Amino acid sequence: MSHNTFGHLFRVTTWGESHGPAIGCVVDGCPPGVRLDAEQVQAFLDLRKPGTSRFVTQRREPDQVKILSGVFQDDRTEATYGGQVTTGTPICLMIENVDQRSKDYSEIRDRYRPGHADYTYDEKYGVRDYRGGGRSSARETASRVAAGAVARAVLGDEIKIRAALVQIGDQTIDREKWDWDETEKNPFWCPDAEAAKDWEVYLDDIRKSGSSVGAVIEVVAENVPVGWGAPIYGKLDSDLAMAMMSINAVKGVEIGAGFASAALTGEANADEMRAGNDAPRFLSNNNGGVLGGLSTGQPLVTRFAVKPTSSILTPRQSVTAQGDEVDVRTKGRHDPCVGIRAAPVAEAMMACVLADHKLRHRGQTGS
Amino acid sequence: MSHNTFGHLFRVTTWGESHGPAIGCVVDGCPPGVRLDAEQVQAFLDLRKPGTSRFVTQRREPDQVKILSGVFQDDRTEATYGGQVTTGTPICLMIENVDQRSKDYSEIRDRYRPGHADYTYDEKYGVRDYRGGGRSSARETASRVAAGAVARAVLGDEIKIRAALVQIGDQTIDREKWDWDETEKNPFWCPDAEAAKDWEVYLDDIRKSGSSVGAVIEVVAENVPVGWGAPIYGKLDSDLAMAMMSINAVKGVEIGAGFASAALTGEANADEMRAGNDAPRFLSNNNGGVLGGLSTGQPLVTRFAVKPTSSILTPRQSVTAQGDEVDVRTKGRHDPCVGIRAAPVAEAMMACVLADHKLRHRGQTGS
Amino acid sequence: MSHNTFGHLFRVTTWGESHGPAIGCVVDGCPPGVRLDAEQVQAFLDLRKPGTSRFVTQRREPDQVKILSGVFQDDRTEATYGGQVTTGTPICLMIENVDQRSKDYSEIRDRYRPGHADYTYDEKYGVRDYRGGGRSSARETASRVAAGAVARAVLGDEIKIRAALVQIGDQTIDREKWDWDETEKNPFWCPDAEAAKDWEVYLDDIRKSGSSVGAVIEVVAENVPVGWGAPIYGKLDSDLAMAMMSINAVKGVEIGAGFASAALTGEANADEMRAGNDAPRFLSNNNGGVLGGLSTGQPLVTRFAVKPTSSILTPRQSVTAQGDEVDVRTKGRHDPCVGIRAAPVAEAMMACVLADHKLRHRGQTGS
Amino acid sequence: MSHNTFGHLFRVTTWGESHGPAIGCVVDGCPPGVRLDAEQVQAFLDLRKPGTSRFVTQRREPDQVKILSGVFQDDRTEATYGGQVTTGTPICLMIENVDQRSKDYSEIRDRYRPGHADYTYDEKYGVRDYRGGGRSSARETASRVAAGAVARAVLGDEIKIRAALVQIGDQTIDREKWDWDETEKNPFWCPDAEAAKDWEVYLDDIRKSGSSVGAVIEVVAENVPVGWGAPIYGKLDSDLAMAMMSINAVKGVEIGAGFASAALTGEANADEMRAGNDAPRFLSNNNGGVLGGLSTGQPLVTRFAVKPTSSILTPRQSVTAQGDEVDVRTKGRHDPCVGIRAAPVAEAMMACVLADHKLRHRGQTGS
Repeated sequence: MSHNTFGHLFRVTTWGESHGPAIGCVVDGCPPGVRLDAEQVQAFLDLRKPGTSRFVTQRREPDQVKILSGVFQDDRTEATYGGQVTTGTPICLMIENVDQRSKDYSEIRDRYRPGHADYTYDEKYGVRDYRGGGRSSARETASRVAAGAVARAVLGDEIKIRAALVQIGDQTIDREKWDWDETEKNPFWCPDAEAAKDWEVYLDDIRKSGSSVGAVIEVVAENVPVGWGAPIYGKLDSDLAMAMMSINAVKGVEIGAGFASAALTGEANADEMRAGNDAPRFLSNNNGGVLGGLSTGQPLVTRFAVKPTSSILTPRQSVTAQGDEVDVRTKGRHDPCVGIRAAPVAEAMMACVLADHKLRHRGQTGS
Repeated sequence: MSHNTFGHLFRVTTWGESHGPAIGCVVDGCPPGVRLDAEQVQAFLDLRKPGTSRFVTQRREPDQVKILSGVFQDDRTEATYGGQVTTGTPICLMIENVDQRSKDYSEIRDRYRPGHADYTYDEKYGVRDYRGGGRSSARETASRVAAGAVARAVLGDEIKIRAALVQIGDQTIDREKWDWDETEKNPFWCPDAEAAKDWEVYLDDIRKSGSSVGAVIEVVAENVPVGWGAPIYGKLDSDLAMAMMSINAVKGVEIGAGFASAALTGEANADEMRAGNDAPRFLSNNNGGVLGGLSTGQPLVTRFAVKPTSSILTPRQSVTAQGDEVDVRTKGRHDPCVGIRAAPVAEAMMACVLADHKLRHRGQTGS
Repeated sequence: MSHNTFGHLFRVTTWGESHGPAIGCVVDGCPPGVRLDAEQVQAFLDLRKPGTSRFVTQRREPDQVKILSGVFQDDRTEATYGGQVTTGTPICLMIENVDQRSKDYSEIRDRYRPGHADYTYDEKYGVRDYRGGGRSSARETASRVAAGAVARAVLGDEIKIRAALVQIGDQTIDREKWDWDETEKNPFWCPDAEAAKDWEVYLDDIRKSGSSVGAVIEVVAENVPVGWGAPIYGKLDSDLAMAMMSINAVKGVEIGAGFASAALTGEANADEMRAGNDAPRFLSNNNGGVLGGLSTGQPLVTRFAVKPTSSILTPRQSVTAQGDEVDVRTKGRHDPCVGIRAAPVAEAMMACVLADHKLRHRGQTGS
Repeated sequence: MSHNTFGHLFRVTTWGESHGPAIGCVVDGCPPGVRLDAEQVQAFLDLRKPGTSRFVTQRREPDQVKILSGVFQDDRTEATYGGQVTTGTPICLMIENVDQRSKDYSEIRDRYRPGHADYTYDEKYGVRDYRGGGRSSARETASRVAAGAVARAVLGDEIKIRAALVQIGDQTIDREKWDWDETEKNPFWCPDAEAAKDWEVYLDDIRKSGSSVGAVIEVVAENVPVGWGAPIYGKLDSDLAMAMMSINAVKGVEIGAGFASAALTGEANADEMRAGNDAPRFLSNNNGGVLGGLSTGQPLVTRFAVKPTSSILTPRQSVTAQGDEVDVRTKGRHDPCVGIRAAPVAEAMMACVLADHKLRHRGQTGS
């Protein structure tokens, strides 16, 4: 049952609420002998950490991860692997919540914030930890990033996974100017240096007015071997769609040419092949690296849309848990574009899906 | 493991190849006492059946379904339920393949058709039933439609699930002219009568030239109760994304405002609420009926893009299994737009996802 | 969800009722390139077939299996594998029910047979196909035997799986006289030729009096590699316990020394080891080939108890579905010892568990 | 995949090694609104705690549990439920390891202790946290007991689950003298006061000689409603068999009359029924409360055998990881009979299986 778990052989179960004592995850199915220490995981968490620029939430969380189980180091592993490694047992990663500002939450306790899960959670569960969104908070994604660090260790260095924002609000990048290195140089994960500059001005306006906008993020995995995935209901692309859509505020996912492919002709859409050295060479990648649910060896390309942050300064009409009409307005720290922080989360989800399929591929084939 | 199974409590496992003796599915988890007979299932299969218009494949398959298990009728059930009902045991549905034209498949045996799963299947499995696409054929979707009929019986009449094509190639409908009744009056499941007429001309041209185009399909479920779904990894929208993306040739999925929401401001995107009679009333539905992965009670709206049929008359460059360069060109019967036949399949997938979550909802809540 | 499915990577879903049109199973996860044809499966079904001796049910079922999907043969597979092979897609096996004697079942419709699932099914489901036990009939085990044949093909010839009856009623074998070849020479799967002769007389008495007795069956798998299994909840022994206990009428399962180990001292129970050629050599096998849930390389030994057939001639007190008190007595064909037919079923279950763990082992280790 | 997870709707994932920083579990699927605080869980942990008598391991662990997620208390829950309750989100329970005596483990690092998982883990994983048994240590069962406390809260007070030791070594109880209250008055969970006195002498001898013996534990659940369970592969009894067999050192499991039923006749074994007030009344319970995999409403009775502790003072022959022959002998604190501490663990497993089936029952039936 996939309530709080995703993956099959590389399984990630996350737990924790925004304002509880801690959040974390259990990664089950990680093979033994994979080099893993807290620093490795921390590096990825630091990329997602709140409070790193004025464009993301100002909550101050050090997000220090602890590995509670599943790894071991002694003379023997030192000699064989060069350090601490996984043992094949479940890896529990914990991040303590520190900045649980003791503020008064009584206002949002009973007021359903439009665009949030307040109303639906209350209707489903009858009880809800409303502090900071509780379980539905984007804070849960820190656990995903931690799990993603383990997934990357399983995948190895050759498989390269990177995310970039290709649109913020109505501002898009110029794909001709794509430079992956740029994504690390601006606070927007933007691969187009010029666009990034414009976005800074654009988003400052949004931020100051207490408004928000959405975004489109592209995630690419390179050097994925041919044949990962599983027809019919374990397709690599349907697993990716599920994974990306499970990220907070995501409203759409596409692979390769995506929605644009609807308007193409069969001639234009066909990814033609020519003989290559070890494998056929594709002349285009409209299929985004997947055919029949299996990887083609081309870059795996997915893109997803994040809606604008629902927490805004302008009052919006709503109702209370008691059914009274109210206006709701969000004060205090917030993200003008939650899509920005979705980039490292999306990389982590891509890594987890691929790690799972790497392991599944072995069980499906060979003898 | 989700290779050939989807759903958790309402589980569907499909089996069968395009040119094997039969295809079908096992539906496990259907509650007892649900009225179900072969006619009910057949009605939905007839909607999907090939050969019904010149715009879909001319393969002649009667697609007669047989229920091999899981139902029972005797005096007692007759008296209690009025006819044949499910017993809570697995329901095996079988459709025999009839039109397995004994044609020569040697040409596609070794030639990788661009846009098809030929190359990836061969790489993964080393062996492949290439006749008509084998397991990767859209013929598998008949099993989904059969399972969907069972799902609808579980959901009952109140939940209404309908699909419509909103785009074919570069032709879109006028949403102002939306009339659900029209979808049954033209071969395109088009809700806009005028657009349907234009599409007939447009698609005839495509068909005659041996080309193909893609499509965008919208699926809507009405009267879904509040609270179905499951955070964090069993979200109703991520399950729908997975389900739709698993349909052959689908390259993108969106919920509610979807990709368009990226360009919206938080103010415009907020679905405001006012007090209603039994439940809050939403003033818009940008969220497409889902908040935090749970249904809001509003119409559940998903949209997905289908790429153009890969089988076209114009030769495309490719390679053989032996690595030689060849040109590939598809002769014979084919669909100018496979998206048309995706409509009933999408309805079935929506029904299956909802039936699963209906059952899951019980296990998650109440006592 | 494990209602009608067992296994994780080698997954078997069975379907069908005793008196429906057919029974069968879908085997999902079988790797590609495994030689498989109907004759192979049929050979195992013939061993389980009813009506082969006077000690088992006289129902006449040819039990002819058809492979509906998942296999392929052409020149290419012929050349590579020598015949028809699996393709990695789901294998649907179907056995049509033939001898559905049109007898009057009205008597058992409302009378709860002691020891049967009549009462519990009615309470749970409210509706039940009571003809011949419906889904709870031992007829379902034919599907398991069919699936077991596929599992054996996955395991290969080196792993040898055999079952033997070591007790019928209060009659036990002399383990000193154990000869596997004998199990094929008497109708009891008895490895002790002398005991088999005694059992014939003993069981004839039981049969003639319309009574029944239970049995204990031992299943042994040889040449299982070291390390198959999965701590903590996928232990090889707990999976075997689950598998054997799921067979109709089974009331107990043990591994190695089993219940007898409770009375042993630590000194007597220890399976000491000495250096061997390729692997350590064990001096005893009280652990039955499993340590910490993982195979040791020694023979995997499990034993299970089957209760006496519940259908007997002597009237037993019971109640009707309406709550009236009645006497129930079973007329017609029946097994004096259902344990006899459990032997091939147990072999099949052992094969399925091992095939699953063979595939799981790959996903758990290596890189 | 069931490596470190058990249950389907009430899912328990345990993590942690004997000598890592902490052990614990994530309970997913617990319904909302169930009263749960740390004291409740602690009470069950205290019953299992090491060091409580001279007959169990002298490791000193306070075993203080922390609830890291999944519960909430505020004015609103206080008013509605009277205190802290579950929210329907995953419950992470953590127990820090305190007494990780910094002893020298180099001796067992390379020496395979007979009866332990040392050899098989090394063969499977190639790397192993050998300190105190690592993941294969019985310490993992503390996590099960913690999860069991949550399961009991889900089940409510009416369902009564109790365990008793009915055999230690070759000493059995007199079932005529069964008194559940006695199980709390002696260190053996023995329901026969006289036997308990004898066992004290008997086990002191075993303990002083550095030897060990096995045990048989009986677990009974009363007031389980009719119809819980799921044919064919989710049977209540096969799930119990799996659960009990997964406990360290267990070698056999039986239900109701168990292995003894093999020797019974059908007449003697039949649990006859008479009309009762609300439900039929059974005249015996050879079936142990399960028919066809579904609960009958009678007490659910299971029994399992635990092998003698493998850690003993007398040297046993073995080999090293390098293949050299050695003698192995366990010094220091140990259990003369690990079966004693299995009693609360078995209760917890019974509770978890029942909580899972309580939730599953809802999804399977009704509408």
